[in-house]
Amino acid sequence: MTPAFDDWMKTVQAASERDLAAYLPGPDVVPTKLHQAMRYALLGGGKRVRPLLVYAAGALFGADEALLSRAAAAVEMIHAYSLVHDDMPCMDDDELRRGKPTVHVAYDEATALLVGDALQSQAFLVLSEAAPCERLVPMLRLLAHASGSAGMCGGQAIDLDSVGLSLTLEQLEQMHQLKTGALLRASVVLGALAGKTLDAAETAALNTYARAIGLAFQVVDDVLDATADSATLGKTAGKDAADNKPTYVSILGLEPSRALAQQLRLDAHAALAPFGDKALRLRELADLIVQRKA
Amino acid sequence: MTPAFDDWMKTVQAASERDLAAYLPGPDVVPTKLHQAMRYALLGGGKRVRPLLVYAAGALFGADEALLSRAAAAVEMIHAYSLVHDDMPCMDDDELRRGKPTVHVAYDEATALLVGDALQSQAFLVLSEAAPCERLVPMLRLLAHASGSAGMCGGQAIDLDSVGLSLTLEQLEQMHQLKTGALLRASVVLGALAGKTLDAAETAALNTYARAIGLAFQVVDDVLDATADSATLGKTAGKDAADNKPTYVSILGLEPSRALAQQLRLDAHAALAPFGDKALRLRELADLIVQRKA
Repeated sequence: MTPAFDDWMKTVQAASERDLAAYLPGPDVVPTKLHQAMRYALLGGGKRVRPLLVYAAGALFGADEALLSRAAAAVEMIHAYSLVHDDMPCMDDDELRRGKPTVHVAYDEATALLVGDALQSQAFLVLSEAAPCERLVPMLRLLAHASGSAGMCGGQAIDLDSVGLSLTLEQLEQMHQLKTGALLRASVVLGALAGKTLDAAETAALNTYARAIGLAFQVVDDVLDATADSATLGKTAGKDAADNKPTYVSILGLEPSRALAQQLRLDAHAALAPFGDKALRLRELADLIVQRKA
Repeated sequence: MTPAFDDWMKTVQAASERDLAAYLPGPDVVPTKLHQAMRYALLGGGKRVRPLLVYAAGALFGADEALLSRAAAAVEMIHAYSLVHDDMPCMDDDELRRGKPTVHVAYDEATALLVGDALQSQAFLVLSEAAPCERLVPMLRLLAHASGSAGMCGGQAIDLDSVGLSLTLEQLEQMHQLKTGALLRASVVLGALAGKTLDAAETAALNTYARAIGLAFQVVDDVLDATADSATLGKTAGKDAADNKPTYVSILGLEPSRALAQQLRLDAHAALAPFGDKALRLRELADLIVQRKA
């Protein structure tokens, strides 16, 4: 019998936490401060949305668990490094993340810089140490592409340059498709690729799904930033407005943003139709992303 | 007829410059500021020691030129990213690099942070886009290992923690073996691996060579920092003493440091004996590293 979504989610989150801890050098390994700070940044929190997407997409084609575990850890390490650097004073200057002091506050700026740098290397290391298969190089390539200037870093650069500007909806969407969308898309495709080489139709369907949930994720983020409190979010609420950043809520308004998120959820479901029952977890994750409260 | 060393070096440096430019997104590709800053950080300067080592080691086993080109670009991108981050105010706070304003001075701190992050991703991307061969995953793994907390980032962390402390010679050596040695060693082994899978004796000989030139490189750096002027170095001279950093010169003295560099040059030559004439360029590079004036 298929476990309920909540049980499945908790199982994956627990497995991710355990694997991430195992894929990092121990806190007593020299240089100890760096390794402790890497663990502080990566462990003990987070919704693990990207690992959940990797495992959910892995279910499409019966992917090998060991390879999924490494792919999930790699994308989560990339995500975690980006948060550490984004929180630094020269970027968003945030002091709270997942309810804890950010890395540069708990340690210092130089350590935060190195933690991010080393977590990025560690992501490629962990994935490259998977058992050899003919899809491993394409997986590494996808991770690098999604992380760099054509993906996450590029989106972050556009975000920086757009502070105080009035973006069109298209420009806002392009920015988020890089900043957060690229890594969410990579999570889905990595999970599927862990199972088999994808044909063009499968790739297109997964990209459509991933594009929809990536945008939905951001729309919901903007809605929550405008409506929730810091304690619920585990990070500083109302920050976008205070920073004069363009958001879906500032461009569309609150209720149209909520409606857009619901439409994107339906788009995501529609894209999964060809995969039938095997896409159950991906469908449920689209629902989770839109319905989350933090 | 074998070209003279200077001609060979200039040929490799020109090829590296051309390849690095080609492996980066163009300056007109969005986000343009990020891509321009990445090009600023990577192109138009540097001795290209790491690409020279990759090509020199590639000559040992007749490595494929296209794979060497990607491996050389990848290590140089990792090196360049580390310089951008090391120069930032929260680290060494340096304003001059290769005779030009550092990236955070020429652009801004947030851009410098992203330039480093994106160059690291680009390094893995460029290498992962090589034509498939059974040594590509091991090469990616080596690059990741040498870059992360067990390599370059780890050495940087130890360096940070050792400011103001009096290190023993062994502690200083351990720090440099990670901070600069790991990537120099990776350059040598990547070049060789581009030719064939290495046996244990070959790996041991190349590691001995790389360890010797890695240390020699640092000893000479310390000697130059203590004796040359900023205009010759293209960076701020006398910085180590001003920052109260332990160096070979501060621990051993100037003349013993010079003698150590010469001894390490001979050690490097001795390690190459099994490779005969094919190690010509590696021998010449050991000489260059010890005899350089900047």
